[in-house]
Amino acid sequence: MKSMAEAKIAFQGEMGAYSELAAREFFACEAKLCPTTTFEGVFSSVKNDESTHGIVPIENSLTGSIHENYDLLLEYELPITGEIKLRIVHNLIANPGVRMDRIRRIYSHPQALSQCKEFLKKMGQVELITVYDTAAAVRMIRDGQMRDGAAVASAQAAFDYGLAILRAGIEDNQRNLTRFLIISKQETTPASDPKTSIVFSTSNVPGALHKSLGVFATRYINLLKIESRPIYGRPWEYLFYLDFEGDTREERCREALDELTKVATFMKVLGCYEKGKEVDGRVYER
Amino acid sequence: MKSMAEAKIAFQGEMGAYSELAAREFFACEAKLCPTTTFEGVFSSVKNDESTHGIVPIENSLTGSIHENYDLLLEYELPITGEIKLRIVHNLIANPGVRMDRIRRIYSHPQALSQCKEFLKKMGQVELITVYDTAAAVRMIRDGQMRDGAAVASAQAAFDYGLAILRAGIEDNQRNLTRFLIISKQETTPASDPKTSIVFSTSNVPGALHKSLGVFATRYINLLKIESRPIYGRPWEYLFYLDFEGDTREERCREALDELTKVATFMKVLGCYEKGKEVDGRVYER
Repeated sequence: MKSMAEAKIAFQGEMGAYSELAAREFFACEAKLCPTTTFEGVFSSVKNDESTHGIVPIENSLTGSIHENYDLLLEYELPITGEIKLRIVHNLIANPGVRMDRIRRIYSHPQALSQCKEFLKKMGQVELITVYDTAAAVRMIRDGQMRDGAAVASAQAAFDYGLAILRAGIEDNQRNLTRFLIISKQETTPASDPKTSIVFSTSNVPGALHKSLGVFATRYINLLKIESRPIYGRPWEYLFYLDFEGDTREERCREALDELTKVATFMKVLGCYEKGKEVDGRVYER
Repeated sequence: MKSMAEAKIAFQGEMGAYSELAAREFFACEAKLCPTTTFEGVFSSVKNDESTHGIVPIENSLTGSIHENYDLLLEYELPITGEIKLRIVHNLIANPGVRMDRIRRIYSHPQALSQCKEFLKKMGQVELITVYDTAAAVRMIRDGQMRDGAAVASAQAAFDYGLAILRAGIEDNQRNLTRFLIISKQETTPASDPKTSIVFSTSNVPGALHKSLGVFATRYINLLKIESRPIYGRPWEYLFYLDFEGDTREERCREALDELTKVATFMKVLGCYEKGKEVDGRVYER
């Protein structure tokens, strides 16, 4: 989408991970990709200028939010500058020549396994083993030369490691999309279809949340998502992460945020960016 | 809290798991406890009358909601009949005689490991291995007679397996509480301090959530928690799980719920029960 020969994009996982696929769709192919093992690694890489951008999954349409990344957005204070929605196609991947009925162990990220629950149930007696990344699971199958193990991962990961796809599209529901956010110190302004992400907290009195949402309702600003997260060390108190349609430069949005600042006990804009397009991942011959 | 000689309580994990500790505090000790390996196992045990009650964690004050159990509450349609908040004290547990500086691998449930992040960082080069249950991690250390492994779990689990506590209270923050819900076909009515849990969805128009919360705000009904979960197969549409102070038999609550039924596209009461007390877990000599 964006051509940036100088860009270095940090992502969690190994080459062939869904985060890498999403990065390749969002940025032009010439962008350099930097794998990290943890989500926090993505944030610290951008913070320390080892990368110009980071990409992290924030929500899957079937299994819900990735809360760690909500927490990290606030902790690292790195602005959200973009979004992309990747259609997730999971595949059962094994060493060439391995037959389906020989599979006894299946390796993948817990989220990927949970998105293929129905398919895996039908496999009968197989052990599910969780790995920190889907592409890493494929690598383990290859490195171990396993004849009774398989991985759940992308077609790209199968291609990269020269493994066979035993069954394609094994996710329980085809409307399986993961929404990724781009973080960067280089803030942008959305050219079209703007969206804003904020985080706020309210006092614990009846009607406080209602009043906070009222600043948007009275201005016909459409809310896209609300997510609550605990406030660390203050049991049963919450931060609310809110996405709404609109640009912080628009008058009605500026007014709404000004009013929210008065109503809420805390408020921070996390980013204003172009709403993400829905894309299918492609397989690249490296 | 409740004396029920005939009660059979299903919980996830093994004896010594925090769920078991919470069940022992909520019910009298004579209640029979039935361990299951999954949260879904707790729900199906109650549904199939193999247990009279189930207990599941719904939220931790540091790490947030256990979303799987939100989904299961709706899927199984088993009413919530009670609540308890257990103070979680994590301990580093090893075989007797094993010294702290010999520990190279630490086993526990991912949530427990993440609640001890700071302590574990200070341990230096140790491998963290996730297990489905904290008490099961202790059993593995004992069964494997490990001399370089330790578990993060309750004092009860250490006592049950005859293992030593190398360090007590290793959680990053002392305000570490887990809120558990009791589910049962035997609905009760709260004697005092009532609380109601509901789930609803709204149409995707500006102000829809604001209007839904308005039915509570106009009646001064205090909201305790809101949690959003994806609607399966409908990307970026959500169910809202809401807890509020009040009893469904009170007129203002009945009116609010009647009005919400008209405003929302879907609404269901998940339970009306007594607000949970905050308790410390005790160690029982079995």
